[in-house]
Amino acid sequence: MSSSDIFISETIGTAVLILLGGGVCAAVTLKRSKAFNAGWVAIAFGWGFAVLTGAYIAAKSGAHLNPAVTVGVVLKGGEGAPTWGDTPAYFGGELLGAMIGAVLVWIAYYGHFKAHLNDPEVAEQKHANPGPVHGVFFTSPAIRNPIQNLATEVIATVVLVLAILTLGLSDNGKGVSWAGSLLVALVVVGIGLSLGGPTGYAINPVRDLGPRIVHALLPLPNKGGSDWSYSWIPVVGPLLGGAIAAGIYNVAFA
Amino acid sequence: MSSSDIFISETIGTAVLILLGGGVCAAVTLKRSKAFNAGWVAIAFGWGFAVLTGAYIAAKSGAHLNPAVTVGVVLKGGEGAPTWGDTPAYFGGELLGAMIGAVLVWIAYYGHFKAHLNDPEVAEQKHANPGPVHGVFFTSPAIRNPIQNLATEVIATVVLVLAILTLGLSDNGKGVSWAGSLLVALVVVGIGLSLGGPTGYAINPVRDLGPRIVHALLPLPNKGGSDWSYSWIPVVGPLLGGAIAAGIYNVAFA
Amino acid sequence: MSSSDIFISETIGTAVLILLGGGVCAAVTLKRSKAFNAGWVAIAFGWGFAVLTGAYIAAKSGAHLNPAVTVGVVLKGGEGAPTWGDTPAYFGGELLGAMIGAVLVWIAYYGHFKAHLNDPEVAEQKHANPGPVHGVFFTSPAIRNPIQNLATEVIATVVLVLAILTLGLSDNGKGVSWAGSLLVALVVVGIGLSLGGPTGYAINPVRDLGPRIVHALLPLPNKGGSDWSYSWIPVVGPLLGGAIAAGIYNVAFA
Amino acid sequence: MSSSDIFISETIGTAVLILLGGGVCAAVTLKRSKAFNAGWVAIAFGWGFAVLTGAYIAAKSGAHLNPAVTVGVVLKGGEGAPTWGDTPAYFGGELLGAMIGAVLVWIAYYGHFKAHLNDPEVAEQKHANPGPVHGVFFTSPAIRNPIQNLATEVIATVVLVLAILTLGLSDNGKGVSWAGSLLVALVVVGIGLSLGGPTGYAINPVRDLGPRIVHALLPLPNKGGSDWSYSWIPVVGPLLGGAIAAGIYNVAFA
Repeated sequence: MSSSDIFISETIGTAVLILLGGGVCAAVTLKRSKAFNAGWVAIAFGWGFAVLTGAYIAAKSGAHLNPAVTVGVVLKGGEGAPTWGDTPAYFGGELLGAMIGAVLVWIAYYGHFKAHLNDPEVAEQKHANPGPVHGVFFTSPAIRNPIQNLATEVIATVVLVLAILTLGLSDNGKGVSWAGSLLVALVVVGIGLSLGGPTGYAINPVRDLGPRIVHALLPLPNKGGSDWSYSWIPVVGPLLGGAIAAGIYNVAFA
Repeated sequence: MSSSDIFISETIGTAVLILLGGGVCAAVTLKRSKAFNAGWVAIAFGWGFAVLTGAYIAAKSGAHLNPAVTVGVVLKGGEGAPTWGDTPAYFGGELLGAMIGAVLVWIAYYGHFKAHLNDPEVAEQKHANPGPVHGVFFTSPAIRNPIQNLATEVIATVVLVLAILTLGLSDNGKGVSWAGSLLVALVVVGIGLSLGGPTGYAINPVRDLGPRIVHALLPLPNKGGSDWSYSWIPVVGPLLGGAIAAGIYNVAFA
Repeated sequence: MSSSDIFISETIGTAVLILLGGGVCAAVTLKRSKAFNAGWVAIAFGWGFAVLTGAYIAAKSGAHLNPAVTVGVVLKGGEGAPTWGDTPAYFGGELLGAMIGAVLVWIAYYGHFKAHLNDPEVAEQKHANPGPVHGVFFTSPAIRNPIQNLATEVIATVVLVLAILTLGLSDNGKGVSWAGSLLVALVVVGIGLSLGGPTGYAINPVRDLGPRIVHALLPLPNKGGSDWSYSWIPVVGPLLGGAIAAGIYNVAFA
Repeated sequence: MSSSDIFISETIGTAVLILLGGGVCAAVTLKRSKAFNAGWVAIAFGWGFAVLTGAYIAAKSGAHLNPAVTVGVVLKGGEGAPTWGDTPAYFGGELLGAMIGAVLVWIAYYGHFKAHLNDPEVAEQKHANPGPVHGVFFTSPAIRNPIQNLATEVIATVVLVLAILTLGLSDNGKGVSWAGSLLVALVVVGIGLSLGGPTGYAINPVRDLGPRIVHALLPLPNKGGSDWSYSWIPVVGPLLGGAIAAGIYNVAFA
């Protein structure tokens, strides 16, 4: 597959992933949304089915949608697998897609962001804090502790990438198959329910970095800072996790 | 497939879709229902499995159940795909089915509608407002703003139709396959969780227009108006979204 | 397949269905259960996965588990389908299985039933009413009105049986296939979420009658009456619904 | 398959099972987790998708992950099935994996355990009790009664193992297939929703024993005792249930 085909497919798939994933955070946390307070079960299934939808749409390129998956798949290797030479197209499409997805969330929920952050009625009810808006764009730890937070992201990403690698690659050798997408989606629901508590489970460098860049650039009233001091953890942790998963796979299952 | 076969299959499938989809709105919002206050997770899964059920039942005609899907499938084209000549049978069956489905909800929940709108005990508890009853029949925006609401419906429908088009058509070339129905159903759950917050996600012109017509005609005490001023948005938005999805598909994936 | 094979398979499958289905009602409604107050989403998924589990286990006989399904499958007919001559084995196994399942719920939750109905601490908290215990064994309407309640049960069962008939029969011609069981299970979740509000969705004569008989016979303190005046509706409604579904199938899809 | 291959595969798969399963208990019950109070639906789906993830990863060895499943599969027998000679590798991998999984939960949630048990602010809010921490590591009955608790664990495990046996073994004859893993995962969700109320559903000797040992050994402030007096029930009950399920299978379905 050509680099431009990979780039286009990963861009569109990751845009859908972040549109739906960021969308469920907006839906559940912004006060005037119809899904307000729908809870963590909604968050976990919302992100899982965001993976499902993005994965089907980007099946052509193997639907990595996540640099940690790309790293794991390349390190696993095998006939027809993507190589390091393919990674610029994957990483580029993933990051651009994540940024486009965040812009689409901003469009779809613009009125709700504004109402949340600016509306005097909401403000009186003490909901005019930027926390929920931040949650739409980037993850934050429940208890801030770099080593602990990094460990949680590494562990959760090992589970994700190990499951993807043992599911096997798709017919075209690029990533998970369409049927595998359903399974991966449910694994993501499981990781969200089980390991999302401490850090909000980025488990994907671009899921966090792309929307964080968009948050820094977009015009929103009272939006607060973009918490750049935490931003390296959801990038480094998942990349480490992807590499460790490939190591476990190659030692134990290859 | 003959136009009458298409018409009958789409009518029955869409009737089931709206019976279960309108039904979950009634179940969750009408005060004396056993599922009262089951929340947005119930709404999202209820609509998703309504799609699943209607899709299986109407598999013979490809189970569009939605003019936005019909538009996307026709614009994508390909061998054996439905053509513009088939659209009157699809659109007609979809609209008639949606109206029948709304009547069936009205029958299944008649006692609950009446109790909700008319019962003095309920009225004293300040639940005798027609809002929930409206929600069963038609969508309303959480924050009313035509451009914003239209944008949200367009974006959500692009995701739906793009996923359907990339999943491939069914064996008979008319629409999604039976196995695809499960995936589409989970995509609809995801869209509901993620993008349902601002407008209640019509993402289907007849899901809104059919039951709205039925609401205008049916005898219910204190039922309030049928909010016709909003009615064009959940028709135009999804149709635009279906066309845009076909354009993205034809440019990026064909 | 011999009548005794049908009888044994349907007995075991229906026992599992009612054990898990009655079990989720106990889990969610009995005060000292760990799942107390888990809500309608738990009920709907619990019954759906009860169908899934029972259906896999009874796949040998087609996994009807429900006389309304047996009626629909026989009326649809076709090569290898069960005939009226097979129905005594199906109906008998279904009813006996439902009774065994209810006894198993009684064993698994005996301490909780007793605590719920008898414990002074619970009684002081005004939870010592038999309502939840009744809900484990038999359905009750939210608003009692025979015609309305019958209509709701008929409509919900038509959806169930129509979906099963369009999914096709299993390889051995007796009922749904294993893969179909997953789809039917999710349809049952959908029906519960959407149409369970008014009557608690029996949609299966033995789901209601079997455990009701067991409730009448079992020793439980303060258990109250078994509400026999309502008992004909969840028997007649589903049987009517199964027959109507077969009629729709034979006219519209055969 | 060699004993060491079985041992490695079962160790890794069971570690993932307990990491995600124990993780969801931590996520839902520890006060400062983002998923705090997500409820029983989260618990049931979290454990179910923990099974899904562990089962895919350990597919090579049939993914028992549970001595009760190993017992059932061996007693069922058949060509290519594991024999008693394979059980040391299975049992050993399962127990070691469960202990590793519990250690990983302890790492991923260490800050939350500490905050829960030690933080004065949490203590003032009367949440500084070890109950939730215990729930992460081992099960406890809602109403303590050995015979009753044993009966509930036996019944729930019979359902689990009977479903696994009727689903058939995997291609390599060792256990459930990958596709079967999805079904088993949903059966586990169903058992959790329906039969988890009285004892918290161990239904797996190592799920309880492995983390209980780890709890006894790990340094955690104010962690309380490890409740060894109850520990035999979630070991003996599931083993009995697995054997009974094999008996039912061999009599009724073989």
